[in-house]
Amino acid sequence: MDRFMEAAIGEAKTGLAEGGIPIGSVLVRDGRIIGRGHNRRVQEGDPIKHAEIDCLMQAGRVKDFRSTVLYSTLMPCYLCAGAVVQFGIPKVIVGEARTFSGAGDFMGEHKVEVIVLDLPECSEMMARFVRENPDLWNEDIGIVS
Amino acid sequence: MDRFMEAAIGEAKTGLAEGGIPIGSVLVRDGRIIGRGHNRRVQEGDPIKHAEIDCLMQAGRVKDFRSTVLYSTLMPCYLCAGAVVQFGIPKVIVGEARTFSGAGDFMGEHKVEVIVLDLPECSEMMARFVRENPDLWNEDIGIVS
Repeated sequence: MDRFMEAAIGEAKTGLAEGGIPIGSVLVRDGRIIGRGHNRRVQEGDPIKHAEIDCLMQAGRVKDFRSTVLYSTLMPCYLCAGAVVQFGIPKVIVGEARTFSGAGDFMGEHKVEVIVLDLPECSEMMARFVRENPDLWNEDIGIVS
Repeated sequence: MDRFMEAAIGEAKTGLAEGGIPIGSVLVRDGRIIGRGHNRRVQEGDPIKHAEIDCLMQAGRVKDFRSTVLYSTLMPCYLCAGAVVQFGIPKVIVGEARTFSGAGDFMGEHKVEVIVLDLPECSEMMARFVRENPDLWNEDIGIVS
Protein backbone atom coordinates (compact mmCIF):
# COMPACT_ATOMS: atom_id res chain seq x y z
CA MET A 1 0.00 0.00 0.00
CA ASP A 2 0.95 3.66 -0.52
CA ARG A 3 3.29 4.41 2.41
CA PHE A 4 1.66 7.78 3.03
CA MET A 5 -1.78 6.21 3.33
CA GLU A 6 -0.18 3.65 5.61
CA ALA A 7 1.04 6.52 7.81
CA ALA A 8 -2.47 8.04 7.82
CA ILE A 9 -3.93 4.66 8.86
CA GLY A 10 -1.30 4.50 11.61
CA GLU A 11 -2.55 7.88 12.87
CA ALA A 12 -6.16 6.60 12.80
CA LYS A 13 -5.14 3.56 14.87
CA THR A 14 -3.35 5.80 17.36
CA GLY A 15 -6.56 7.80 17.72
CA LEU A 16 -8.59 4.64 18.25
CA ALA A 17 -6.17 3.43 20.92
CA GLU A 18 -6.61 6.77 22.71
CA GLY A 19 -10.39 6.24 22.78
CA GLY A 20 -10.96 8.60 19.88
CA ILE A 21 -12.52 8.50 16.43
CA PRO A 22 -10.25 6.49 14.09
CA ILE A 23 -9.49 8.96 11.32
CA GLY A 24 -5.92 9.84 10.38
CA SER A 25 -4.24 12.23 7.98
CA VAL A 26 -0.80 13.22 6.69
CA LEU A 27 0.38 16.14 4.56
CA VAL A 28 3.09 15.34 2.02
CA ARG A 29 5.47 17.57 0.05
CA ASP A 30 8.32 16.40 -2.18
CA GLY A 31 7.88 12.80 -1.05
CA ARG A 32 8.15 13.71 2.62
CA ILE A 33 5.56 13.89 5.39
CA ILE A 34 5.46 17.48 6.69
CA GLY A 35 2.44 17.10 8.98
CA ARG A 36 0.44 14.32 10.58
CA GLY A 37 -2.60 14.13 12.79
CA HIS A 38 -5.70 12.30 13.89
CA ASN A 39 -9.15 13.19 15.13
CA ARG A 40 -8.89 14.45 18.73
CA ARG A 41 -12.46 15.54 19.51
CA VAL A 42 -12.86 12.99 22.29
CA GLN A 43 -9.32 13.27 23.63
CA GLU A 44 -9.24 17.09 23.76
CA GLY A 45 -12.95 18.00 23.79
CA ASP A 46 -12.32 20.01 20.64
CA PRO A 47 -14.85 19.78 17.77
CA ILE A 48 -12.43 21.39 15.31
CA LYS A 49 -9.72 18.75 15.73
CA HIS A 50 -10.72 16.60 12.81
CA ALA A 51 -7.81 14.51 11.52
CA GLU A 52 -7.03 16.76 8.55
CA ILE A 53 -7.22 19.91 10.71
CA ASP A 54 -4.96 18.37 13.36
CA CYS A 55 -2.53 17.46 10.56
CA LEU A 56 -2.54 20.98 9.07
CA MET A 57 -2.08 22.55 12.52
CA GLN A 58 0.91 20.31 13.07
CA ALA A 59 2.37 21.19 9.64
CA GLY A 60 2.23 24.87 10.63
CA ARG A 61 2.83 27.82 8.31
CA VAL A 62 3.55 26.01 5.05
CA LYS A 63 2.79 29.22 3.13
CA ASP A 64 2.69 27.62 -0.33
CA PHE A 65 0.50 24.52 -0.44
CA ARG A 66 0.59 24.15 -4.25
CA SER A 67 2.99 21.21 -4.17
CA THR A 68 1.39 19.41 -1.23
CA VAL A 69 -0.86 16.35 -1.16
CA LEU A 70 -3.25 15.69 1.72
CA TYR A 71 -3.97 12.09 2.69
CA SER A 72 -6.94 11.14 4.82
CA THR A 73 -8.33 7.73 5.78
CA LEU A 74 -11.87 9.12 5.27
CA MET A 75 -13.42 11.54 2.77
CA PRO A 76 -13.05 15.05 4.25
CA CYS A 77 -16.11 16.89 5.56
CA TYR A 78 -16.88 20.54 4.68
CA LEU A 79 -14.66 21.88 7.48
CA CYS A 80 -11.59 20.01 6.22
CA ALA A 81 -12.49 20.43 2.55
CA GLY A 82 -12.86 24.16 3.25
CA ALA A 83 -9.26 24.22 4.49
CA VAL A 84 -8.13 22.36 1.35
CA VAL A 85 -9.90 24.82 -0.96
CA GLN A 86 -8.87 27.95 0.96
CA PHE A 87 -5.20 27.04 1.23
CA GLY A 88 -4.99 25.76 -2.36
CA ILE A 89 -4.05 22.13 -1.66
CA PRO A 90 -4.39 20.68 -5.18
CA LYS A 91 -4.71 16.97 -4.43
CA VAL A 92 -6.41 14.85 -1.78
CA ILE A 93 -6.00 11.09 -1.50
CA VAL A 94 -8.75 9.40 0.46
CA GLY A 95 -8.83 5.95 2.07
CA GLU A 96 -12.57 5.46 1.73
CA ALA A 97 -15.83 7.29 1.14
CA ARG A 98 -18.25 4.44 1.90
CA THR A 99 -19.05 5.33 5.51
CA PHE A 100 -19.21 9.09 4.81
CA SER A 101 -19.57 10.79 1.44
CA GLY A 102 -18.31 14.11 2.83
CA ALA A 103 -17.48 17.09 0.65
CA GLY A 104 -15.88 15.38 -2.34
CA ASP A 105 -18.11 17.18 -4.85
CA PHE A 106 -17.36 20.54 -3.28
CA MET A 107 -13.61 19.96 -3.63
CA GLY A 108 -14.10 18.81 -7.23
CA GLU A 109 -16.02 22.00 -8.05
CA HIS A 110 -13.01 23.93 -6.78
CA LYS A 111 -10.59 22.00 -9.04
CA VAL A 112 -9.13 19.84 -6.29
CA GLU A 113 -8.13 16.40 -7.57
CA VAL A 114 -9.73 13.84 -5.25
CA ILE A 115 -8.63 10.20 -5.47
CA VAL A 116 -10.53 7.59 -3.49
CA LEU A 117 -8.53 4.40 -2.89
CA ASP A 118 -11.55 2.56 -1.43
CA LEU A 119 -9.49 0.51 1.01
CA PRO A 120 -11.36 -2.14 3.04
CA GLU A 121 -8.94 -1.56 5.93
CA CYS A 122 -10.19 2.03 6.22
CA SER A 123 -13.90 1.40 5.68
CA GLU A 124 -14.02 -1.60 8.02
CA MET A 125 -12.27 0.29 10.85
CA MET A 126 -14.63 3.24 10.43
CA ALA A 127 -17.80 1.15 9.99
CA ARG A 128 -17.06 -0.74 13.20
CA PHE A 129 -16.48 2.50 15.11
CA VAL A 130 -19.68 4.12 13.81
CA ARG A 131 -21.69 0.98 14.65
CA GLU A 132 -20.35 0.91 18.20
CA ASN A 133 -20.35 4.70 18.80
CA PRO A 134 -23.09 6.28 16.67
CA ASP A 135 -23.51 9.33 18.94
CA LEU A 136 -19.83 10.22 18.91
CA TRP A 137 -19.68 9.96 15.14
CA ASN A 138 -22.86 11.95 14.55
CA GLU A 139 -21.55 14.71 16.79
CA ASP A 140 -18.37 14.81 14.75
CA ILE A 141 -20.20 15.63 11.55
CA GLY A 142 -22.82 17.87 13.14
CA ILE A 143 -25.78 15.48 13.06
CA VAL A 144 -28.07 16.06 16.02
CA SER A 145 -30.00 12.99 17.12
CA MET B 1 -23.92 48.73 18.05
CA ASP B 2 -24.85 45.07 18.53
CA ARG B 3 -23.04 44.08 21.74
CA PHE B 4 -21.97 40.75 20.26
CA MET B 5 -20.35 42.42 17.27
CA GLU B 6 -18.75 44.80 19.77
CA ALA B 7 -17.27 41.78 21.54
CA ALA B 8 -15.99 40.40 18.21
CA ILE B 9 -14.37 43.76 17.43
CA GLY B 10 -12.80 43.67 20.90
CA GLU B 11 -11.28 40.28 20.02
CA ALA B 12 -9.95 41.70 16.72
CA LYS B 13 -8.30 44.58 18.61
CA THR B 14 -6.74 42.15 21.09
CA GLY B 15 -5.27 40.24 18.13
CA LEU B 16 -3.91 43.44 16.61
CA ALA B 17 -2.30 44.42 19.93
CA GLU B 18 -0.60 41.01 20.00
CA GLY B 19 0.90 41.66 16.54
CA GLY B 20 -1.65 39.48 14.81
CA ILE B 21 -4.26 39.83 12.08
CA PRO B 22 -7.21 41.88 13.42
CA ILE B 23 -10.15 39.54 12.96
CA GLY B 24 -12.38 38.57 15.87
CA SER B 25 -15.33 36.26 16.40
CA VAL B 26 -17.85 35.22 19.05
CA LEU B 27 -20.38 32.37 19.20
CA VAL B 28 -23.72 33.22 20.82
CA ARG B 29 -26.51 31.01 22.16
CA ASP B 30 -29.61 32.18 24.03
CA GLY B 31 -28.28 35.72 24.25
CA ARG B 32 -25.01 34.62 25.82
CA ILE B 33 -21.47 34.38 24.44
CA ILE B 34 -20.35 30.74 24.64
CA GLY B 35 -17.09 31.10 22.71
CA ARG B 36 -14.76 33.87 21.61
CA GLY B 37 -11.56 34.05 19.62
CA HIS B 38 -9.31 35.92 17.24
CA ASN B 39 -6.90 35.09 14.46
CA ARG B 40 -3.72 33.65 15.99
CA ARG B 41 -1.69 32.64 12.90
CA VAL B 42 1.13 35.03 13.70
CA GLN B 43 1.02 34.55 17.46
CA GLU B 44 1.00 30.73 17.39
CA GLY B 45 2.37 29.96 13.91
CA ASP B 46 -0.86 28.11 13.20
CA PRO B 47 -2.56 28.60 9.81
CA ILE B 48 -5.80 27.02 11.05
CA LYS B 49 -6.33 29.51 13.87
CA HIS B 50 -8.58 31.86 11.96
CA ALA B 51 -10.78 33.92 14.28
CA GLU B 52 -13.91 31.80 13.78
CA ILE B 53 -11.96 28.54 14.25
CA ASP B 54 -10.30 29.86 17.41
CA CYS B 55 -13.77 30.84 18.66
CA LEU B 56 -15.26 27.40 17.91
CA MET B 57 -12.32 25.65 19.55
CA GLN B 58 -12.85 27.74 22.64
CA ALA B 59 -16.59 26.99 22.66
CA GLY B 60 -15.77 23.27 22.71
CA ARG B 61 -18.24 20.42 22.24
CA VAL B 62 -21.46 22.39 21.79
CA LYS B 63 -23.09 19.31 20.22
CA ASP B 64 -26.18 21.11 18.91
CA PHE B 65 -25.35 24.28 16.99
CA ARG B 66 -28.89 24.86 15.68
CA SER B 67 -29.63 27.69 18.10
CA THR B 68 -26.23 29.39 17.80
CA VAL B 69 -25.21 32.51 15.91
CA LEU B 70 -21.63 33.11 14.81
CA TYR B 71 -20.33 36.67 14.71
CA SER B 72 -17.21 37.63 12.79
CA THR B 73 -15.69 41.01 12.04
CA LEU B 74 -14.88 39.78 8.49
CA MET B 75 -16.71 37.56 5.99
CA PRO B 76 -15.59 33.96 6.70
CA CYS B 77 -13.28 32.17 4.26
CA TYR B 78 -13.95 28.60 3.02
CA LEU B 79 -12.24 27.03 6.04
CA CYS B 80 -14.48 28.85 8.51
CA ALA B 81 -17.56 28.66 6.28
CA GLY B 82 -16.92 24.92 6.01
CA ALA B 83 -17.11 24.66 9.80
CA VAL B 84 -20.37 26.65 9.79
CA VAL B 85 -21.93 24.38 7.14
CA GLN B 86 -20.66 21.12 8.64
CA PHE B 87 -21.75 21.89 12.19
CA GLY B 88 -25.09 23.35 11.12
CA ILE B 89 -24.69 26.89 12.45
CA PRO B 90 -27.77 28.53 10.92
CA LYS B 91 -26.82 32.21 11.10
CA VAL B 92 -23.64 34.23 10.62
CA ILE B 93 -23.42 37.97 11.31
CA VAL B 94 -20.51 39.65 9.58
CA GLY B 95 -18.86 43.02 10.31
CA GLU B 96 -17.77 43.65 6.73
CA ALA B 97 -17.15 41.98 3.39
CA ARG B 98 -15.45 44.88 1.59
CA THR B 99 -11.83 43.84 2.13
CA PHE B 100 -12.55 40.11 1.53
CA SER B 101 -15.61 38.62 -0.14
CA GLY B 102 -14.92 35.18 1.37
CA ALA B 103 -17.34 32.30 1.14
CA GLY B 104 -20.65 34.09 1.62
CA ASP B 105 -22.21 32.52 -1.49
CA PHE B 106 -21.16 29.04 -0.38
CA MET B 107 -22.87 29.51 2.99
CA GLY B 108 -25.98 30.88 1.27
CA GLU B 109 -26.14 27.81 -1.00
CA HIS B 110 -26.17 25.70 2.17
CA LYS B 111 -29.09 27.65 3.68
CA VAL B 112 -26.99 29.61 6.17
CA GLU B 113 -28.43 33.07 6.79
CA VAL B 114 -25.60 35.56 6.31
CA ILE B 115 -26.08 39.15 7.44
CA VAL B 116 -23.44 41.73 6.56
CA LEU B 117 -23.52 44.80 8.79
CA ASP B 118 -20.98 46.69 6.66
CA LEU B 119 -19.41 48.52 9.58
CA PRO B 120 -16.75 51.13 8.75
CA GLU B 121 -14.99 50.32 12.04
CA CYS B 122 -14.38 46.76 10.79
CA SER B 123 -13.46 47.56 7.19
CA GLU B 124 -11.14 50.43 8.13
CA MET B 125 -9.25 48.33 10.67
CA MET B 126 -8.85 45.49 8.18
CA ALA B 127 -7.99 47.72 5.19
CA ARG B 128 -5.24 49.39 7.19
CA PHE B 129 -3.79 46.05 8.26
CA VAL B 130 -3.85 44.62 4.72
CA ARG B 131 -2.22 47.78 3.34
CA GLU B 132 0.58 47.60 5.91
CA ASN B 133 1.00 43.78 5.93
CA PRO B 134 0.01 42.42 2.50
CA ASP B 135 2.15 39.27 2.80
CA LEU B 136 0.70 38.23 6.16
CA TRP B 137 -2.83 38.69 4.90
CA ASN B 138 -2.26 36.85 1.63
CA GLU B 139 -0.78 33.93 3.54
CA ASP B 140 -3.86 33.84 5.73
CA ILE B 141 -6.18 33.27 2.78
CA GLY B 142 -3.81 31.03 0.83
CA ILE B 143 -2.69 33.53 -1.81
CA VAL B 144 0.91 32.87 -2.86
CA SER B 145 2.77 35.95 -4.09
